Amino acid sequence: MLKGQIIMGTITNEVSRLRKHTGKRTMKAIVKHQAAAGAQLQEVPVPEIGPHEVLIEVKATSICGTDVHIYTWDPWAESRIKAPMVFGHEFAGIVVEVGSMVKGVQPGDYVSAETHVVCHRCPQCRSGQYHICQNTKILGVDFQGCFAEYVKVPAENIWKNPAGMPYEVASIQEPMGNAVHTVLAGPIAGKTAAIVGCGPIGLMAVAVAKAAGATEVVALDVNDYRLQLAHKAGATVLINSLNEDPVKRVMQVTDGTGVEVVCEMSGHPLAIRQAFEMLTNGGRISILSLPSKPVELDITNQIVFKGVTVQGITGRRMFETWRQTSGFLHSGQVDVKPLITHMLPLERFEEGFDLMTSGQCGKVVLLP
Amino acid sequence: MLKGQIIMGTITNEVSRLRKHTGKRTMKAIVKHQAAAGAQLQEVPVPEIGPHEVLIEVKATSICGTDVHIYTWDPWAESRIKAPMVFGHEFAGIVVEVGSMVKGVQPGDYVSAETHVVCHRCPQCRSGQYHICQNTKILGVDFQGCFAEYVKVPAENIWKNPAGMPYEVASIQEPMGNAVHTVLAGPIAGKTAAIVGCGPIGLMAVAVAKAAGATEVVALDVNDYRLQLAHKAGATVLINSLNEDPVKRVMQVTDGTGVEVVCEMSGHPLAIRQAFEMLTNGGRISILSLPSKPVELDITNQIVFKGVTVQGITGRRMFETWRQTSGFLHSGQVDVKPLITHMLPLERFEEGFDLMTSGQCGKVVLLP
Amino acid sequence: MLKGQIIMGTITNEVSRLRKHTGKRTMKAIVKHQAAAGAQLQEVPVPEIGPHEVLIEVKATSICGTDVHIYTWDPWAESRIKAPMVFGHEFAGIVVEVGSMVKGVQPGDYVSAETHVVCHRCPQCRSGQYHICQNTKILGVDFQGCFAEYVKVPAENIWKNPAGMPYEVASIQEPMGNAVHTVLAGPIAGKTAAIVGCGPIGLMAVAVAKAAGATEVVALDVNDYRLQLAHKAGATVLINSLNEDPVKRVMQVTDGTGVEVVCEMSGHPLAIRQAFEMLTNGGRISILSLPSKPVELDITNQIVFKGVTVQGITGRRMFETWRQTSGFLHSGQVDVKPLITHMLPLERFEEGFDLMTSGQCGKVVLLP
Amino acid sequence: MLKGQIIMGTITNEVSRLRKHTGKRTMKAIVKHQAAAGAQLQEVPVPEIGPHEVLIEVKATSICGTDVHIYTWDPWAESRIKAPMVFGHEFAGIVVEVGSMVKGVQPGDYVSAETHVVCHRCPQCRSGQYHICQNTKILGVDFQGCFAEYVKVPAENIWKNPAGMPYEVASIQEPMGNAVHTVLAGPIAGKTAAIVGCGPIGLMAVAVAKAAGATEVVALDVNDYRLQLAHKAGATVLINSLNEDPVKRVMQVTDGTGVEVVCEMSGHPLAIRQAFEMLTNGGRISILSLPSKPVELDITNQIVFKGVTVQGITGRRMFETWRQTSGFLHSGQVDVKPLITHMLPLERFEEGFDLMTSGQCGKVVLLP
Repeated sequence: MLKGQIIMGTITNEVSRLRKHTGKRTMKAIVKHQAAAGAQLQEVPVPEIGPHEVLIEVKATSICGTDVHIYTWDPWAESRIKAPMVFGHEFAGIVVEVGSMVKGVQPGDYVSAETHVVCHRCPQCRSGQYHICQNTKILGVDFQGCFAEYVKVPAENIWKNPAGMPYEVASIQEPMGNAVHTVLAGPIAGKTAAIVGCGPIGLMAVAVAKAAGATEVVALDVNDYRLQLAHKAGATVLINSLNEDPVKRVMQVTDGTGVEVVCEMSGHPLAIRQAFEMLTNGGRISILSLPSKPVELDITNQIVFKGVTVQGITGRRMFETWRQTSGFLHSGQVDVKPLITHMLPLERFEEGFDLMTSGQCGKVVLLP
Repeated sequence: MLKGQIIMGTITNEVSRLRKHTGKRTMKAIVKHQAAAGAQLQEVPVPEIGPHEVLIEVKATSICGTDVHIYTWDPWAESRIKAPMVFGHEFAGIVVEVGSMVKGVQPGDYVSAETHVVCHRCPQCRSGQYHICQNTKILGVDFQGCFAEYVKVPAENIWKNPAGMPYEVASIQEPMGNAVHTVLAGPIAGKTAAIVGCGPIGLMAVAVAKAAGATEVVALDVNDYRLQLAHKAGATVLINSLNEDPVKRVMQVTDGTGVEVVCEMSGHPLAIRQAFEMLTNGGRISILSLPSKPVELDITNQIVFKGVTVQGITGRRMFETWRQTSGFLHSGQVDVKPLITHMLPLERFEEGFDLMTSGQCGKVVLLP
Repeated sequence: MLKGQIIMGTITNEVSRLRKHTGKRTMKAIVKHQAAAGAQLQEVPVPEIGPHEVLIEVKATSICGTDVHIYTWDPWAESRIKAPMVFGHEFAGIVVEVGSMVKGVQPGDYVSAETHVVCHRCPQCRSGQYHICQNTKILGVDFQGCFAEYVKVPAENIWKNPAGMPYEVASIQEPMGNAVHTVLAGPIAGKTAAIVGCGPIGLMAVAVAKAAGATEVVALDVNDYRLQLAHKAGATVLINSLNEDPVKRVMQVTDGTGVEVVCEMSGHPLAIRQAFEMLTNGGRISILSLPSKPVELDITNQIVFKGVTVQGITGRRMFETWRQTSGFLHSGQVDVKPLITHMLPLERFEEGFDLMTSGQCGKVVLLP
Repeated sequence: MLKGQIIMGTITNEVSRLRKHTGKRTMKAIVKHQAAAGAQLQEVPVPEIGPHEVLIEVKATSICGTDVHIYTWDPWAESRIKAPMVFGHEFAGIVVEVGSMVKGVQPGDYVSAETHVVCHRCPQCRSGQYHICQNTKILGVDFQGCFAEYVKVPAENIWKNPAGMPYEVASIQEPMGNAVHTVLAGPIAGKTAAIVGCGPIGLMAVAVAKAAGATEVVALDVNDYRLQLAHKAGATVLINSLNEDPVKRVMQVTDGTGVEVVCEMSGHPLAIRQAFEMLTNGGRISILSLPSKPVELDITNQIVFKGVTVQGITGRRMFETWRQTSGFLHSGQVDVKPLITHMLPLERFEEGFDLMTSGQCGKVVLLP
């Protein structure tokens, strides 16, 4: 058992002990308390909801790479986050209160939520392309998040979970949605695919690609722990790019033609260039990662002559991606449990962030 | 063990005994000998190949519904087939001779073949849409087929099989290609699907839909034997349309909205109308079946108001579908062995046709 | 000048005289007053708006085929319409009042409106596919319409018009949107197309197909008046199906292969069957028409073997279609003015319906 | 009249005088005679054709940017071209001889040709994606070209021209095909578009975008002569990027949202980065240009967060693009004549290359 890992049964009891009654005025929350690295567990007011909003008791909330950026206070966080603020955006919970104009959501509903709050007025929203709204606001980034006992979200962002789905599984539908959105952004069944970068979303992309009928799923990373998780998730070829030439190896396993689909989830300039090189003519590369600087690309040889398609992927299609994600989980075609390597009480959030930083984990879930 | 079924080991010996050396001038073949029901096993000349053709020793050849039409001499057969003729078109075998201008295929190659021979001159061919060539000629329908010890085909129609793929599996890639073409004619991953009609291709469609990530695969037929095979193939819901209202049941399992994808493989007018009714708004219905008469459709309510897409599916995309099919078999994501219920020596073809007519079989393979 | 036609200058004066101040309690409206043929001009209450609604002073409102069904009281109307009710749904006007929670729309805005009011809760709505909402309610069909001095609609249905667009042009964006949706439901540029049925929407489809780059636009109807309008709209081939075999003629003008795109807008069973027959292999037929009974289709030969795609088209994509429509009008690439053959004061609605029934008109616009 | 420009009537006479009888053993040709800048007019043997090839008398041949690279002997040319060689690849002419196995092409046919000769064996070819063949050989680059009185090409590369199409127009279908392929690589009708770089192909892209229904066509270049040609071709907004901030201007004309489609035809790193910046969320950028070095792209902000699609475009879809191109010219929807600014006898090729280098021309056509 890895450090920080907790046996399921134990958690369940511990979690029960933590449950709160509605009517509380304050709650525990992880607060980005100042414009510097770190965070604090504080007692803060329970959010007040407006007429179109919903209040949810958080049962499980998972840590995203974005949260790590906020925690470690990198330049992106510095430019975007206004401390003090409760952060966190991936969760599952039970509705405890709904606004006066809310229809279709009720106290007692078991829910998760889309974390992008959109404007409904830009041309993209007006054509139902909400995931690329020009004025997106993000839960836990632009307004108060869910690393807390309670969280409020607009009612229209609610996604209802099926009874019986474990809280920790329901809480990671949001990042799994990123993986689903990326993998299903074009044809995948009967094709060869490579997942470049096996962080938590990359690992879920491996599982999704396999479930969606990719006939080869090559997983690439520089971290053997994560490649082993990729193996559990269904990868058919594992490549540690530190130990061998990843492009050469991909060419070997594809009869010299390259893979038909690449999901780029590493954000690393060299890995990105290799990702293009391992793609066959006419292939698709769907990029979810966010490289921290501009990247030099050989447009002539790697995009134009090869006739490839490059897709930028952001968020989740509302709510088509949620439907697909929920379907995969419900049918059992994607099993994310092996990828949830750690569950911790909310109070032990620092262990969670340390794990995320170390790379020696899959998905880390906090339990308020 | 069902009547006609043969233990694999026995077959292997019997088959070995049947193997012929090249250089023979005549061969055994199943001949549609006259313009009436039935067929005869005859000794006929081994085909002579032209400069762009290839001669193949047939190792396994499977019976298609089309062959049953020819055997029973229905109106379609009467209008299309010129007896006497060797029929059959699904096979796997070993190349024994290649024409003088053939490149890339050699004696000893283990192959199957696309059965549509195309013109290369119509607008469809000129744009690479060979499967809808305006002047298609079909192996075993428009020219001599493969229910024989040897068959010749144009070199460009050859598909090379991976070593180690069993002959009987390789022989059914052609009809499995129909299933793959139908299922993958639009998005399927994360969607709910219904396969209407569980003959051999319908059964393969069940397996393909599951492998390609459909989260529900509803199988419909009026034959419980075939529904049981559908269950083995991965169907999540089985409906015998004689015993219950199929539309009602589909609505129940889809929260009242209907399925997102229907693959119509029954050819039956009532089943086709039900297929449209069980489709949700914006859904896709891909039709592979060939109803023997025009069918009345409620275009207004079942197509226009629902905004559905209806696709006619014919043949296999050359050779994208073959690549996908081969990939699914090679990766093990689709296992067709449980669907090959009977293997018989070529001489016992009449038993094979009787089985096909009875519906008490999956795929029936003949071994020359 | 045809009976009922009015010179533009004259209308403008007459219209000015009809303008009303807000604050009125009653208004003129065309009311379907009883469950039988006909309608009456009545003085009825001005609608009261709710918090998310908008009240608009109607400047121009055009007659749709649907309105003719309601006026003549056909079986469809009988089953759907609850008299007494103000009908009509195509319009342009000026906002005079907005509800308390409305954002982004203000009194004085020059607007038209999407006429489908959707539920936001069915799976189709939840994925941004509002035009195929399972619970659509239609302005002037399911609730009070716009053949009146004022109309109310939900704020989210508002489409803002550019200043300077004539009222009569702005009022027909809704049906033009049907044409745009149909023509642009698949690739059209560089392709050959046929528009089957040249009622007002068919005529607009001719103009849109031409503007969108169809290299041949074959217009088919049985009414020479409308074929002449199709000629003005840009049709390159005119076929009166009463006078010649339309399929034969289409084959002649397409070198024997058929057209690549058909827009079916006739609703007539024979014309629909011909529409399929004139389509080339792999072609697309997009059906907007609403045949009054089920239609017999030769699925085997006209859909499956030809590998065609049949699309049911309903409504307009919200609001992508509106954007395209507005763009075509604004750029001048589609000029609908020649297709607006008649403009009449609201009071002379009976002349308008007579014209529509006769087929001796393009679009008929009423001016309240 | 610009230097080098010739009046049409004059040309016609001069051209007639140049016509040659078949049976000749040698011919005039522009030969890249040594591995250095420049070229020579030489008398060389008329090509001998193989069984699947066709010999064509060249009536008009146009100069491509690629030819300029060969003429000026840049690093790319040095790495790819084996001197001595006849170059040139865009042409129209009359078939004078066909190989023994050629079907469907006859002496006397008026033709042009696809210049990419493909392998038919790579996975891309096997799936009908010939334009991205892994082993493409190019006429006038990898084997003898058409700057000559005669040229030979494989029969399968022949495209038949309609009688009456002027030679100079027929000769530029190949580069116009690049423009058509780029513009029609995704939806364009009813959308706003920008063409970045108005060399000859960019100018044709302007005309194609307009013909295919783009509602705004913004043309960008740093050369006012070419912007004036873009205006003639139908551009609605002209931007000289040296004189104003192109991104700012595009935002102004699109209500602050950016264009929906960009065709990148400049190959310039700064222009490419601006091209991404002027694209709206969810937009498409189709790149035909071949930047000479890797380009730094802000993947995070310009691709991922905006959810854009980047397409590499190479060659022409065989032969779908040819069909579309021919259709646009035949229908008159695209008029390329204003873009053919210069026609010269073959002997005056040096003037042609000087014009191309100066940028003070549209398309330059040589007449053998």
